[in-house]
Amino acid sequence: MPTRTSKPAAGSVGTVDTQFLDLPQPVALDCGRDLYPIRIAYETYGTRSPDGGNVILVCHALSGDAHAAGYAAKPADVSARDGFRADERDAGSGQGLGWWDGMIGPGKAFDTEKYFVVSTNLLGGCRGTTGPASTNPATGRPYGSEFPVITVADMVRTERAFLKELGITRLAAIAGGSLGGMQALEWAVQYGGDVASIVVIASTHALQPQGVAWNAIARNSITGDPNWQNGHYYGTGRAPDAGMGVARMVGHITYLSAQSLKVKFGRRLQFDEDIRYTLTEPEFEVESYLRHQANSFVKRFDANTYLYTSRALSYFDLARQHGDGDLQRAVRNMSARTLLIAFSSDWLYPPEGSEELAAALRAAGKDVELHVIDAPYGHDCFLLEEARQTPMIQNFLSASKVSG
Amino acid sequence: MPTRTSKPAAGSVGTVDTQFLDLPQPVALDCGRDLYPIRIAYETYGTRSPDGGNVILVCHALSGDAHAAGYAAKPADVSARDGFRADERDAGSGQGLGWWDGMIGPGKAFDTEKYFVVSTNLLGGCRGTTGPASTNPATGRPYGSEFPVITVADMVRTERAFLKELGITRLAAIAGGSLGGMQALEWAVQYGGDVASIVVIASTHALQPQGVAWNAIARNSITGDPNWQNGHYYGTGRAPDAGMGVARMVGHITYLSAQSLKVKFGRRLQFDEDIRYTLTEPEFEVESYLRHQANSFVKRFDANTYLYTSRALSYFDLARQHGDGDLQRAVRNMSARTLLIAFSSDWLYPPEGSEELAAALRAAGKDVELHVIDAPYGHDCFLLEEARQTPMIQNFLSASKVSG
Repeated sequence: MPTRTSKPAAGSVGTVDTQFLDLPQPVALDCGRDLYPIRIAYETYGTRSPDGGNVILVCHALSGDAHAAGYAAKPADVSARDGFRADERDAGSGQGLGWWDGMIGPGKAFDTEKYFVVSTNLLGGCRGTTGPASTNPATGRPYGSEFPVITVADMVRTERAFLKELGITRLAAIAGGSLGGMQALEWAVQYGGDVASIVVIASTHALQPQGVAWNAIARNSITGDPNWQNGHYYGTGRAPDAGMGVARMVGHITYLSAQSLKVKFGRRLQFDEDIRYTLTEPEFEVESYLRHQANSFVKRFDANTYLYTSRALSYFDLARQHGDGDLQRAVRNMSARTLLIAFSSDWLYPPEGSEELAAALRAAGKDVELHVIDAPYGHDCFLLEEARQTPMIQNFLSASKVSG
Repeated sequence: MPTRTSKPAAGSVGTVDTQFLDLPQPVALDCGRDLYPIRIAYETYGTRSPDGGNVILVCHALSGDAHAAGYAAKPADVSARDGFRADERDAGSGQGLGWWDGMIGPGKAFDTEKYFVVSTNLLGGCRGTTGPASTNPATGRPYGSEFPVITVADMVRTERAFLKELGITRLAAIAGGSLGGMQALEWAVQYGGDVASIVVIASTHALQPQGVAWNAIARNSITGDPNWQNGHYYGTGRAPDAGMGVARMVGHITYLSAQSLKVKFGRRLQFDEDIRYTLTEPEFEVESYLRHQANSFVKRFDANTYLYTSRALSYFDLARQHGDGDLQRAVRNMSARTLLIAFSSDWLYPPEGSEELAAALRAAGKDVELHVIDAPYGHDCFLLEEARQTPMIQNFLSASKVSG
């Protein structure tokens, strides 16, 4: 069952194969529909302890996949690594490095010498797990927009059904950033008995209204592209790449801070000599960078997955779902110890959100630890500020009581 | 020559006709082309003094027009009033109110009992002044993307040529917010002898890199829409409304603060009962609001004008244009007294930019006054915080020496 791991470099889990598992039963979704079949793409790192008490589930964010650590045995054309310095770092380290490789491996924050780390592509995904590009058994064609509108709770239910197939019913920890952190929170609220601790990074109990707006803009950009074809673009030779590119540009800027753009690009022109009086070509380096980001993203990511995942993370609202609008009430049944990490310059998931959640947890008598890291890279800090997160996570995990 | 003004209400300039003037000569543009013919749409408010020393030019922002004050004699279907509370205020005050009516009129910041206020639609505009939708004399068809790529300096040159036709060669003041403030700055740097003072609100000597990025995203959204047709969509029955709508949504969110979105919309759902599991329909009030804003905007605004104007404001950079990269050097020949007003929550034109400009002006020995108003509405404050701007502007203008 554990994924083959070979030739580990120092601190690396080595080369990893993504594996696949078909769930034996339908998953009941929040919208009322049952979904079947469901295939899960996953990877594992490290070795499961005899008592099974050392399992950590890692949940990815909007554009990630199951390949969280190590080198991919079959690298995709374009890496799923996100973030500001992803290109530079990939250039230095070769193709196919997992999106959270800096955090998962021997001696790292999620130490594979101690823990058995499991990572899945989320429900609705486009990197191996069943999603809108999968075949709808009712029609024999890809679901497209007939795929059910899913929620974070549906993602969590699916992960839980998957882990059950691996024989895992009890987790030492669930960890994730952004949408990944939402999954960890949802799990702790719904299935408190299953999980000893959660690590929630650059995430929140409910997206801020401005974040809801950015996500709506990104979705409008995709659905407004005539090549979206009401979601049924598979096999037509036309995909909503233009709308998806703009969606990605919007997302990308919300992941960075104004300050980091200033430092990295300033107002530098593409061509030193001067402006060229062009309406459509990039003139500033930041314009060129955005176009590059958009072009890479549309090659590796399915627009419908973007729509469904963006919708799910906008819907996510612990207080509305579990507390009749009251956050403290929503978390009343949580038993997992909680580590929250936020970043000072993250304006998409601002520290105030983490502080609000920490206050609600404390008021409900829960065990919560919040760190706000002062760092300039915006939301992308969660992928970049590995050195400062590592001791916080290691200390937090080592204090957890793990039972099989 | 002065515009007909009738039935003034208290504090109002009354009902106003937009007028038109054709420039007798071509305007030489930065890109090297001469543009001819050029028609200017304009309005005037108040009475010119016998010595001609009481003229104030008001410059509008990206989506404005010549109708700055009073009621339009022929109201457009959709007002050019922008901003957060524009809809509410229009509902209360009737159709066709000028976009800066709160600031221009008897007893207001730009007091029409003292000043003769002139407002034009800028070069490249779509509300009466020559722009990309105008007929290209070389082809007999609308310019579309054959319209020259213009700069803020080109806008200013055009305004200057227009004022000369009105017999105005000396201005008591030039005032504007956002792109309008850029025009005031450009004028003072290039034609310092012509203008006694400038009022620059929520504006800057050069857009921040994040602002450059947002503008690039908006333009990419328009040019990526297949209905843009490389700029030649006029008369085809298809316009890039989808791309333009997304561009407007992006713009709109950058004009507001995260805090104001929280206060106005929070995470309130469109339908009280619950979420509806829909991929494409608005679920949150803020989503619905954005769609409404986009739909209104595409009805009243030409996509090509958006492209050209957005490009011009991204290009604008006093230091690059006039100081070999040195801002203090760029402003060395300015003689106009300068009033800068910035708003604490404006993250598109943040107060730091105004502070940097004020420091350069002071270092160059210039007369500059900077006020940072603590207000929560973001960039839109410049249209909303009239009560607090009014005494600042009145005091500043009354201290100006005006000569004919």
